[in-house]
Amino acid sequence: MKRIAILGSTGSIGRNALDFIGRHRDAFRVTVLTAGKNIALLEKQIHLFLPEIVAVADESAAGELQKRIGKKRASSLAILSGQDGVTEAAAYKRSDFVLSAIVGAAGLMPTLAAIRAGKTIGLANKETLVMAGRIVMQEAKKYGSKILPVDSEHSAVFQCIEGHRRSDVRRIILTASGGPFAGRQKGELKDITPEDALRHPSWKMGKKITIDSATLMNKGFEVIEAHHLFGLPPQGIDVIVHPQSIVHSIVEFNDRSCIAQMSMPDMKGPISYALTYPERFRDVVSGLSLHEVGSLTFKKPQHRCFPCLSYAYKALEAGGTMPSVLNAANEVAVEAFLNREIPFTEIPVVIRKTMDRHTVRTDKNLNAVLEADRWAREKAKGIIYSLKNSKNLKKRET
Amino acid sequence: MKRIAILGSTGSIGRNALDFIGRHRDAFRVTVLTAGKNIALLEKQIHLFLPEIVAVADESAAGELQKRIGKKRASSLAILSGQDGVTEAAAYKRSDFVLSAIVGAAGLMPTLAAIRAGKTIGLANKETLVMAGRIVMQEAKKYGSKILPVDSEHSAVFQCIEGHRRSDVRRIILTASGGPFAGRQKGELKDITPEDALRHPSWKMGKKITIDSATLMNKGFEVIEAHHLFGLPPQGIDVIVHPQSIVHSIVEFNDRSCIAQMSMPDMKGPISYALTYPERFRDVVSGLSLHEVGSLTFKKPQHRCFPCLSYAYKALEAGGTMPSVLNAANEVAVEAFLNREIPFTEIPVVIRKTMDRHTVRTDKNLNAVLEADRWAREKAKGIIYSLKNSKNLKKRET
Repeated sequence: MKRIAILGSTGSIGRNALDFIGRHRDAFRVTVLTAGKNIALLEKQIHLFLPEIVAVADESAAGELQKRIGKKRASSLAILSGQDGVTEAAAYKRSDFVLSAIVGAAGLMPTLAAIRAGKTIGLANKETLVMAGRIVMQEAKKYGSKILPVDSEHSAVFQCIEGHRRSDVRRIILTASGGPFAGRQKGELKDITPEDALRHPSWKMGKKITIDSATLMNKGFEVIEAHHLFGLPPQGIDVIVHPQSIVHSIVEFNDRSCIAQMSMPDMKGPISYALTYPERFRDVVSGLSLHEVGSLTFKKPQHRCFPCLSYAYKALEAGGTMPSVLNAANEVAVEAFLNREIPFTEIPVVIRKTMDRHTVRTDKNLNAVLEADRWAREKAKGIIYSLKNSKNLKKRET
Repeated sequence: MKRIAILGSTGSIGRNALDFIGRHRDAFRVTVLTAGKNIALLEKQIHLFLPEIVAVADESAAGELQKRIGKKRASSLAILSGQDGVTEAAAYKRSDFVLSAIVGAAGLMPTLAAIRAGKTIGLANKETLVMAGRIVMQEAKKYGSKILPVDSEHSAVFQCIEGHRRSDVRRIILTASGGPFAGRQKGELKDITPEDALRHPSWKMGKKITIDSATLMNKGFEVIEAHHLFGLPPQGIDVIVHPQSIVHSIVEFNDRSCIAQMSMPDMKGPISYALTYPERFRDVVSGLSLHEVGSLTFKKPQHRCFPCLSYAYKALEAGGTMPSVLNAANEVAVEAFLNREIPFTEIPVVIRKTMDRHTVRTDKNLNAVLEADRWAREKAKGIIYSLKNSKNLKKRET
């Protein structure tokens, strides 16, 4: 019986995980659920999975939940609130496994708390490694915390390397669906609306990550993640566009033999693999019929149209606090795009300008990383403001 | 320093292995070479690799070699002859690793001798497992002999399973190039000449195996081999046609996650993997650029046009001595086709008729297997004779 904490239980990964756990109640027990502010769904999950602790990041939503739950249930359930509450819940002593599935930078501190409590981590929160990969991996080693990737690509790499010698790995090839706009020319990207960008061809995911997929920023984050998880230099990590999303990633060994992991695209695959590791449960996803798929295609990513991927390589090469800046600027830019403040093509512009203005500091302590995150958010907001202003000026002039 | 014996050193696998060993003389030493009758090439190999023992299956060729080598070299080299000589050489006490690369049923006894001497076996000779898989695997267990597959498909499966739990394997999917005639209709196969059939689209191999590829019999043998090597029932082994020969095989696990091994098609890959296992040497084959390959395609095999594959499943289901009969009838039929005695489409006819007339006996002792092999060869020859006669009769009648 594994005792599971789910950080971000109302998000796409959290919901999928609970669905899987619900079908295997003999194998798992839910100890902790945390959410941002989706109280309605969290309440349902509490009734279904009877956790011992819940934490709600939004303070007023936490109060609202307390009222709804009522006195009877509340006696066996601790309700924590705020960022600190989520972080406390992440380290709860009665959990064995912590699924880190909070979206964005908010996932870093709770994940780090779970690592320092020596838990096994199912890592879906990319930002933890993008922002503070060096610190996080060091702490995991120090506290004996095993990190199992939940991203389909890193789960694939993990499955491909399993049982082979790390020293024999020459290269990792992360596959990218290419997002909904793969193959488009630069001029065709200008008028993309949030609705267009949220229509992902193969994966059903949350909003933020779906936009990151469309800009290839998501793949850039995955390159940084892979660097930390598997200890390869940037030039040992490649990206290839594979629109069918059947091959989830490939490991090339020194002799040039490649091992690839494949399945129908379904997040339940990597989520359940992390939850059940080292076991595999039966029929987690639909079977793959390659003769029905017929053809698997591969092409190089279009760096010119989708520069975010190359910015990630640049941030990784620059090292220190730069990946944290990349991540923060991207979060701000994506939010501005979703709020229709900037066009799709200006997401990379905001990121690049923010990175250009950053002076890299070492990422050996967490404060520098968090400070760089705060700095970059402010800076990116300023850049968006001036982009909007210069456009308004142009409009007035014409 | 691994000490290597190569059984069948003048064949395609043997030559590739020696080429690889020649480029890594610090890692390997050749102890034994055996050949059928290609004395000219064997002599060159002796001068290049200085083995301690050579064995020549053909007695008169062995005498001829003795003369050519001269007295000086002969003092440090033992030359054995005949089937017994080859079998004795296979068990030579100063070898660590025996590459079993003799073509056809002749490979069985020497391979078994090497297994009983506790050697690590690089198994390229399919017939060893097709004819006597049960006995061979039992003996390997008894004598602590590790069998490493050298067929590209089984090497792929081996690499995919490595580090994973056998009990988690649901299915093996062997890929088949489909041979030079994939996609043709039944009527289009009648007039195929040996020259047509020897033109394999992706693999450079010996004559016998190239014809077996064209009929899909080779894939059928591989199904039987996979059954013995990986302990899966016939219904746990599938075949899919993949003309690019990049994906060498696939393992499906219980959760429906699939692991595949890929590389450019080059026998040096699996040969070197067996020789260097558990290490991998650098740049053994050319690197795989999936964006240059562009597209990997998959389709179901055409059982109606190429019935040999389904005969292999039938032989495996029947069990006992039937796979030995399948193999013997096929060897006789392929030889008759290469000698232009029967058309391409009559290879499966000869096999089916021979199998139909066989009464299965248990394969628990080797004599039954060898006796079935002898019986099937006689029977197949008789069937070929009557096929030719009935055709001559028809010709005379018209």
